[in-house]
Amino acid sequence: MFSKILIANRGEIAVRIIRACRELGIRTVAVYSQADKEAMHAELADEAVCIGPAKASDSYLNAQQILSAAILTKAEAIHPGFGFLSENSQFAEMCEACNIKFIGPKSATIDAMGNKIHARQLMQKAKVPVIPGSDGAISTVEEALTIADKIGYPVMLKAAAGGGGKGIRKVLTKEELAPAFQSAQQEAKAAFGNDEMYLEKIIYPARHIEVQILGDQYGNVLHFGERDCSLQRNNQKVLEESPSVVISKEKREALGQTAVRAAKAVNYQNAGTIEFLMDLEGSFYFMEMNTRIQVEHPVTEMVTGVDLVKKQIEIAAGEILTLKQEDIQLKGHAIECRINAENPAFNFAPSPGKINNLLLPSGGMGLRVDSAMYSGYTIPPYYDSMIAKIIVHGENRFEALMKMQRALSELVTDGVITNAEFQMDLISNPYVIAGDYDTAFLQEKFLPNWKPEG
Amino acid sequence: MFSKILIANRGEIAVRIIRACRELGIRTVAVYSQADKEAMHAELADEAVCIGPAKASDSYLNAQQILSAAILTKAEAIHPGFGFLSENSQFAEMCEACNIKFIGPKSATIDAMGNKIHARQLMQKAKVPVIPGSDGAISTVEEALTIADKIGYPVMLKAAAGGGGKGIRKVLTKEELAPAFQSAQQEAKAAFGNDEMYLEKIIYPARHIEVQILGDQYGNVLHFGERDCSLQRNNQKVLEESPSVVISKEKREALGQTAVRAAKAVNYQNAGTIEFLMDLEGSFYFMEMNTRIQVEHPVTEMVTGVDLVKKQIEIAAGEILTLKQEDIQLKGHAIECRINAENPAFNFAPSPGKINNLLLPSGGMGLRVDSAMYSGYTIPPYYDSMIAKIIVHGENRFEALMKMQRALSELVTDGVITNAEFQMDLISNPYVIAGDYDTAFLQEKFLPNWKPEG
Repeated sequence: MFSKILIANRGEIAVRIIRACRELGIRTVAVYSQADKEAMHAELADEAVCIGPAKASDSYLNAQQILSAAILTKAEAIHPGFGFLSENSQFAEMCEACNIKFIGPKSATIDAMGNKIHARQLMQKAKVPVIPGSDGAISTVEEALTIADKIGYPVMLKAAAGGGGKGIRKVLTKEELAPAFQSAQQEAKAAFGNDEMYLEKIIYPARHIEVQILGDQYGNVLHFGERDCSLQRNNQKVLEESPSVVISKEKREALGQTAVRAAKAVNYQNAGTIEFLMDLEGSFYFMEMNTRIQVEHPVTEMVTGVDLVKKQIEIAAGEILTLKQEDIQLKGHAIECRINAENPAFNFAPSPGKINNLLLPSGGMGLRVDSAMYSGYTIPPYYDSMIAKIIVHGENRFEALMKMQRALSELVTDGVITNAEFQMDLISNPYVIAGDYDTAFLQEKFLPNWKPEG
Repeated sequence: MFSKILIANRGEIAVRIIRACRELGIRTVAVYSQADKEAMHAELADEAVCIGPAKASDSYLNAQQILSAAILTKAEAIHPGFGFLSENSQFAEMCEACNIKFIGPKSATIDAMGNKIHARQLMQKAKVPVIPGSDGAISTVEEALTIADKIGYPVMLKAAAGGGGKGIRKVLTKEELAPAFQSAQQEAKAAFGNDEMYLEKIIYPARHIEVQILGDQYGNVLHFGERDCSLQRNNQKVLEESPSVVISKEKREALGQTAVRAAKAVNYQNAGTIEFLMDLEGSFYFMEMNTRIQVEHPVTEMVTGVDLVKKQIEIAAGEILTLKQEDIQLKGHAIECRINAENPAFNFAPSPGKINNLLLPSGGMGLRVDSAMYSGYTIPPYYDSMIAKIIVHGENRFEALMKMQRALSELVTDGVITNAEFQMDLISNPYVIAGDYDTAFLQEKFLPNWKPEG
């Protein structure tokens, strides 16, 4: 086992990883930007190294600087968390070259799944259903028109190197295709230095269903059931749950086996997530694979009882997965609400600032709050606005919803506006209570009718 | 189901009950003393009623006042928590007379188990092994001498109406018996208005093993495995765990069946705990029954997944126990550390005061903190010094211990001295890590060698 790990991240996920390390008896090194001097992750770790100015590109995205910190502190491994460098194959490669274990899949795997066209081809080869669309890169409007005619409108244009919503266009009619293609291609080139595009049919209505998997270094791959992440705003997940109300036991088994097949096709090691879209008929289509731990991993932990972050570390250290697939049963129901420092009344504008008085909900059974906040903490304006995750676990979905209501009602973040009230209204919505929602629900049905209090 | 419950308690247990009610959709009424105006339980409840001055006898022990508050607010039931009026059969009777449901056993059951001599006789009749001793009340030194000669020294003299360590004397030799008897009897008369005494052999070395049970109104009784509460100081539990390292699966089954038999013998309804002493040979002896929820109930909740406080409420409302005994399996390992506002360096003197800055450990899997503290809260000097319970749950005992270390290391209570460092040293002790301790360990082996830092 490692004796020291560097955590190349900040906020709640850095704190989450530090805690897991501590419970495994592993020393930790935090890295922090000048804006994060007072951050909890820097405080909690055994050592902390400043890696540069506030701007992420100067610190949390500065691979060289982070590697230097690892070498300097003699860290044997780096946990990248999510975001920042977590899906940067070059960074993983640099770690490999420095003989520092990157806690995640091999750089070649990140690469393979990072290029969406390549990933699509790999999945097709592994007989994983993909969304009908182009089979390779398309570089001209003419090619796009031919394929769109074949699969039918509406279609989605996507950049091969895509991410963060860049280089994506929804095309409803044939007339819209040419201008959309040109602007998306330009955007892709500017954002990723790669103007390869591809095209997919729009699956709608659909649910966003993803499957958590773990693979060890010896070819063993397990799946941990699904998460339903259909409640999204601007392609950002807002609330996640496991299990999904629309997935039967048989469907779970089929989805799980597909996810395992997908992972095995790329010799996947460590934690990963296969994201699917599922249509009304229950057909599911591969969307993409996230080659890292995800924000919403706790809901899977709560229903399976498996600590995924500890497993990531153990797998990276060369341990074998001794769990058996049949031992992994989803018990009860878990829900996560992301708490963001943002103002829903002003189009969810970020609202950083000082938390004068903090009260995190706690106590009782089946409640977990992952956060890096404390009373008196100042949320810096430079990073993601997510400041806490409230995760509840109940015997059933109803109990979980009641527990989430209770938890949200207790949260106090004096001085900083959050989306807690919005989340409270969301989980109190009859459609959400009934589990009757799709990927468009929040934005097209809930938000237009939602009014902030006061 | 009830629509409104009054919680006749304060501190973390009041908050714990309010949260359970809220998750069940039940409105809550808090009662508070003048010293608890700023207390969290008064803040969290839907309604709060001041019931008198700080002194417990004027407020939290004032049965009339509490009943008036219940009637005034139209509460349909009263949850007494632990301590205060929770084992006061007269209070339970008053509730019954006012047609307010007392969330606990019937007053007659509280009575039967409250008189230790009576409880002993009931248990003997139910073939529950009791500690060798007198079979009824003894009122003279002569009787005491005869019985002590028969069972052999050392013996323990106890008041029939005992509680809180009053009217108890350890007698090592024949010569000590007469003076000890007289002083204990006088103390008992003064404390309880009842000078009935009884006598038991001292079981030593021994482990304190207790079994959680639940009984509904229809004669169904279930047991929820054991808790090991052998780590005590002055007969006060300090750390509790479940399961016990010295209890095999077979022994658990036997203990559980005995506990169920004991509860059925008194038509027990609601949550209760049968406390046993277990000697080195594995023989166990009934000590007493606690006819209420206990401080350490969360460790049982963590390993069984059953919310005992919710079950208490459901049972009181007339619901039937649908759980089956075979469904109750202990999963993993749970440990609770009681955090007290006390100074271990000054003989554990209470250390109330203002918490300027509070940071409760949180996040990750299997960690729960039950508390009523917040940043800026002033702990009043009038009540029990316990201010928080840290409860951890791990796949195994080792993981639970590591998690507790992590949790204790994160706790910050600026301005108030607690026993957190003492607890950290305790769980880091090789004997405690090995599970090799008995009821005398903490006081006789650990404490004499313990030195507070600095």
